[in-house]
Amino acid sequence: MATLLALDFGGTKHSASLIAADVAREIAGGDRPAGPEAWLAHKRVFSPPGADAAYDMETMLALARELMGAYIPAATGVSFGGPVAFESGTVRLSHHVPGWEDVALGPWLQEQLGAPAAVDNDANVAALGEHRCGAGRGVAHMLYVTVSTGVGGGWILNGRPWRGAQGMAGEIGHTVVDPAGPRCLCGKRGCVERLASGPYLAADAQAALATDPAAGAILRSLVDGDLGAITGKRVSEAAARGDSLAGELLERSGRTLGVGLGNAANLVNPQRVVLGGGVTKAGPRWWRALRQALAATTLPEVEVEVAPAALGDDAPLWGAVVLALELLQA
Amino acid sequence: MATLLALDFGGTKHSASLIAADVAREIAGGDRPAGPEAWLAHKRVFSPPGADAAYDMETMLALARELMGAYIPAATGVSFGGPVAFESGTVRLSHHVPGWEDVALGPWLQEQLGAPAAVDNDANVAALGEHRCGAGRGVAHMLYVTVSTGVGGGWILNGRPWRGAQGMAGEIGHTVVDPAGPRCLCGKRGCVERLASGPYLAADAQAALATDPAAGAILRSLVDGDLGAITGKRVSEAAARGDSLAGELLERSGRTLGVGLGNAANLVNPQRVVLGGGVTKAGPRWWRALRQALAATTLPEVEVEVAPAALGDDAPLWGAVVLALELLQA
Repeated sequence: MATLLALDFGGTKHSASLIAADVAREIAGGDRPAGPEAWLAHKRVFSPPGADAAYDMETMLALARELMGAYIPAATGVSFGGPVAFESGTVRLSHHVPGWEDVALGPWLQEQLGAPAAVDNDANVAALGEHRCGAGRGVAHMLYVTVSTGVGGGWILNGRPWRGAQGMAGEIGHTVVDPAGPRCLCGKRGCVERLASGPYLAADAQAALATDPAAGAILRSLVDGDLGAITGKRVSEAAARGDSLAGELLERSGRTLGVGLGNAANLVNPQRVVLGGGVTKAGPRWWRALRQALAATTLPEVEVEVAPAALGDDAPLWGAVVLALELLQA
Repeated sequence: MATLLALDFGGTKHSASLIAADVAREIAGGDRPAGPEAWLAHKRVFSPPGADAAYDMETMLALARELMGAYIPAATGVSFGGPVAFESGTVRLSHHVPGWEDVALGPWLQEQLGAPAAVDNDANVAALGEHRCGAGRGVAHMLYVTVSTGVGGGWILNGRPWRGAQGMAGEIGHTVVDPAGPRCLCGKRGCVERLASGPYLAADAQAALATDPAAGAILRSLVDGDLGAITGKRVSEAAARGDSLAGELLERSGRTLGVGLGNAANLVNPQRVVLGGGVTKAGPRWWRALRQALAATTLPEVEVEVAPAALGDDAPLWGAVVLALELLQA
């Protein structure tokens, strides 16, 4: 039986899945829903503090070998959490894990596993996964955006991943939507990521609560007064329970992303935007703010659908399956 | 001799050119520079006040027939100043001239001229012209932007025009870069067009001079105190002569466009941006502000060149030549 291996190198966890090539073909062809029941084997491990590239590589190789058992996979698809030169399979760097500068991950995996390997960055791979196996099925031109720790994006144009001249396309997180906004880690002010992502949502809530003892009573009680325990998720919960500060921050997140998506729709005119990541679970208030800002930003002649992602955290693995499948067909 | 006809329907003027197909092939193939000496015949006429779609169509047909003389062109390429459904050759509307709603311009020209016709909107066609015949030669992925009365854009991706799902891709003019900025005609605040285009530059200068009698002394003297005579060009001239209000407005134009282009570069990662239109003649101060904002907005991993357009007002005609040439090769 021909099998495919799908690997997902994350900043804090690594996942690997093995799937039969004919099952993968049915799913990627739209004839069968994607789901964990389709895996022959699947495993996820969390990284310890201080993990580096060498640790990541050894860990993933051990995971892969455990899953493979007696099978040599016919091809391996890889999602990596950072910029990748797709053609050569070289990781350019990781913003989270040291030691990943210019690592030829694709060729190394090919040598270790004895099968061709394709590597791309997680947002591009997740876009491919949602496009072929999830919420982007049947659409030729789409933008996938994940809103969680960061805000990343990947394009599908004419049914194919669009990676750009340096493989950097899709960086909606670092488009500027408010030049008077707060400073982002990238150095600019008012990036989409700075205003919409989970950690910044938490940080801005913490700062507001620390400054004003009267603000955010519901949020404060949710964390028993421990401001350091505030997360993006807690902000969403507080907003749902009527905390006005949390609600405003959540609406700002949705609104800002909506403006960024509207700008992207005016620039590229995709048919659909698919949204994944933890922040998209923030509830109807976030989605309403997003949809309103998106509609207000797109020109009247520009039509774009918005859909929640279907594959959750497995989107990069499903995209990796498609990458592997395409190696077989190449 | 096989000839090609290139037509440019503008909001205030119409142009037509006739070219030998083999000459067009050499120019579009990069073997010969584009220039007016390559035309067999060329004519431009200005529209009278009150012109409508019927007037435009009759005028252009008369122009075309005058140029063609005894030749039946082998194909016609058309640039239209408004949204176009490319596949069907249907004009969706004009924002400047009444009566253009859902006009099947391509099929009509085909019938009238006895040759196949391809129609696209002016920014897409100009992008194609600069790509094959001008400042975009040798580059696979580029964004062309014209900054004059409005701000329009067109993409070339993988060497082909990228038009988007509804043919609306490239609308950088109506991406938002400052939600607290002034109101644009489109209803939003802080669009690139609202902050960067010539007429708004003039309008903001007029408003500032009307409000503050001490402001803009140099600009004021350039128009002999007649604020209604202020144009984008006058603002540029005043800035070059040291008028500080004009200089600030000009820098805001360059800076704002730079942010919009940086957002576009992060989103799509083209190799080059080609800039045309009257405002790009505003001088080094405008370009400096643009380049600084662009560099500050793009991520470090995103490299993008910026080049001034090479074909000036003839970019749509040269793009129309390429459209016609592609009809021959189809």
